[in-house]
Amino acid sequence: MYVVRMIRRGWLPSTACGWILFIAIACLSTGSKANAYDGLVEKKVFEIPSYTTAGAHVIKTVRMGYETYGKLNQDGNNAILIPPFFGGTSHAAGKYTPADSLPGYWDGIIGPGRPLDTERFFVISTDGLVNPNTKDGITVSSGPASTNHDTGKPYCMTFPTISIRDFVDVQKALIDHLGVKRIYAVIGLSMGGMQAFEWAAAYPEMVDRIIPVVAIAQCNAFEIGIIDSWVASIMLDPHWNGGNYYAREAPIEGVKMSMKVVILQTRHSDWANKVFERKWASSDKDPAKSMENRYSVQKFLDETSSKLATQYDANHVIYQLRAIQLFSVGGKDSLAEGLKKIKAKVLMLPARNDLLFPLADSSEIRNLLMKQGNQVNFFELEGPLGHMTGITGISQATDVIARFLSN
Amino acid sequence: MYVVRMIRRGWLPSTACGWILFIAIACLSTGSKANAYDGLVEKKVFEIPSYTTAGAHVIKTVRMGYETYGKLNQDGNNAILIPPFFGGTSHAAGKYTPADSLPGYWDGIIGPGRPLDTERFFVISTDGLVNPNTKDGITVSSGPASTNHDTGKPYCMTFPTISIRDFVDVQKALIDHLGVKRIYAVIGLSMGGMQAFEWAAAYPEMVDRIIPVVAIAQCNAFEIGIIDSWVASIMLDPHWNGGNYYAREAPIEGVKMSMKVVILQTRHSDWANKVFERKWASSDKDPAKSMENRYSVQKFLDETSSKLATQYDANHVIYQLRAIQLFSVGGKDSLAEGLKKIKAKVLMLPARNDLLFPLADSSEIRNLLMKQGNQVNFFELEGPLGHMTGITGISQATDVIARFLSN
Repeated sequence: MYVVRMIRRGWLPSTACGWILFIAIACLSTGSKANAYDGLVEKKVFEIPSYTTAGAHVIKTVRMGYETYGKLNQDGNNAILIPPFFGGTSHAAGKYTPADSLPGYWDGIIGPGRPLDTERFFVISTDGLVNPNTKDGITVSSGPASTNHDTGKPYCMTFPTISIRDFVDVQKALIDHLGVKRIYAVIGLSMGGMQAFEWAAAYPEMVDRIIPVVAIAQCNAFEIGIIDSWVASIMLDPHWNGGNYYAREAPIEGVKMSMKVVILQTRHSDWANKVFERKWASSDKDPAKSMENRYSVQKFLDETSSKLATQYDANHVIYQLRAIQLFSVGGKDSLAEGLKKIKAKVLMLPARNDLLFPLADSSEIRNLLMKQGNQVNFFELEGPLGHMTGITGISQATDVIARFLSN
Repeated sequence: MYVVRMIRRGWLPSTACGWILFIAIACLSTGSKANAYDGLVEKKVFEIPSYTTAGAHVIKTVRMGYETYGKLNQDGNNAILIPPFFGGTSHAAGKYTPADSLPGYWDGIIGPGRPLDTERFFVISTDGLVNPNTKDGITVSSGPASTNHDTGKPYCMTFPTISIRDFVDVQKALIDHLGVKRIYAVIGLSMGGMQAFEWAAAYPEMVDRIIPVVAIAQCNAFEIGIIDSWVASIMLDPHWNGGNYYAREAPIEGVKMSMKVVILQTRHSDWANKVFERKWASSDKDPAKSMENRYSVQKFLDETSSKLATQYDANHVIYQLRAIQLFSVGGKDSLAEGLKKIKAKVLMLPARNDLLFPLADSSEIRNLLMKQGNQVNFFELEGPLGHMTGITGISQATDVIARFLSN
């Protein structure tokens, strides 16, 4: 039923799917170690000939890229799963080639002797579905840009709605295929952390531990609204054309606009005020003199959002964002009811100054889980980068994660 | 030199310039009294034949609407000035006609026996410059939509950049014309509060008191970035056409997109989660089934931003937002240096859960002012509406304002 193809990526240029979001602030990173996961990693592809979504739509030939670090043990119970974050890929650790400028996004906590110890654990990281990075030639992820074999054309907006539960179920098919019997832990960042919650609610008997990092268990009305504005920018671009742009110019400006808001919302004023102050983009171009003259922070936003806009597929962005809006753990309207399905031990790693998923969201989840009797550890990441601290500040939790995984 | 024309507005339909932002949440208002300022109010127009901006550009025939409540005393020292907030107008109190559905936005604190007691004070509220509401037929405010008499066409983007200092200086010309000798107090909301700070720094010998409500004294890098994203949405709309749209279709979709983000950023999740929860816009249209099906909060955002988009002039929105970005009190790079010019007594009314101008911004200003010896009162408005609490929650400060104005 399942087909796995290996793709050798040695010929590919140095790449950093998703990472471009973070390059500009790498200097502020508070600990991610520069040395990569030992050994090169390769992207593999998992394929399902026919997949039925949670919404009961059938998709023929669902494909999903993934990477593994370490080896599965004989009992099939040492697997740690890393679902993708919004805009990110499976590339959590190591390098594809020695020439890559950056390792995977959580390289600092993955590898021999690190919390996700690859001498001990079999770590699986996936591209998920409707991944925005498919244009990079490395990321593999079915979605609106995929060819609908019934028509020979891209699905565009006829691709069915994808939910966080769909992410989980395709990953479930993958780990079944790989021979995993129990999941030692699911650790995920942001949308990846939502998948961690959903894994524990959907397969409570199979998941021993979850580590949601800067994540929520239900998208509330305000967050639905914020995401609506991200999507609306893309749809405002006439090149989006109802999602039908694969044979023509892509809606780069719309995605760029959207990413500007994403970049700010996933950071914090402490970062912006420290890095840019009120400096001008050019010392001879006073913003008071002309509308075209910019502040330094505007230049950064223009450049960073432009890079992301070129890199991302607009429809895939829209589909991932809808999956986040739809998310309510365990498929229940009530957060408390959804969380009741979870039996796993939980380590929550929120960021103290997260503007996207405020600390209060995480505190509410913790309290509900504790009331119902779950073992919950709660550790706040600190730093000027708000939501992004889930990447840049993860090494603050090195010992906490290691201890959680040793019990 | 100055020409004042009275415009009778009895024939105008019930209107609510700026208010439309707030109608949808009026039910949550925590105290603004329904009864209007006693007596009808009328819009007046102040005109300067030639005005030179802070950036040394000459504008011929600058016009600005204003309203007054109460009477100037013989010594000319009982004036309270209310500069406009972003997107708002001079309509702070009373009604234009008995049939108006809503009074001015701060009606609850203006009138006989109220803190801004019109038996005692001469209250002046202005439309300011580059006001986005000029299409309403009531608001009067020179800007890109005004006719450049040298060309006979609208200025569009050739209108010079306007700063908060320009707002202040045109208001200064108005009060000089009205015979005001000293300003008893300047009270302003958000961008109006920035003008209050700037008034006290620009004319320290003339201003006795300021009451900045949910305001900042310097636009920091993060806030510059947020505002950049608001402006970028408008410019993304092809109908914006470089600001040249007065003889054609206006960029309604771009302004709508921009206002979606404004509406969220000036509110708080406590409001959204209480009012909308995760309810669907239509009970038979599950957002999981189709991208076109929406949540209730999305419907609200669509409808409210559409109304604002129809009402606002896009270029005027862009110009007011640039004025905010440019703002640094006293024209100094350093916040501390700028504040040093201020001699007035200060009452700051920040909102505790303001997401646009966080409480920490206000605390920093307070500390700097106190260190340099100013008398500063600081009172936090509370409520689920974040920044908007400056309007909906102003009655929480009724006694505090009254006491501040009695000393």
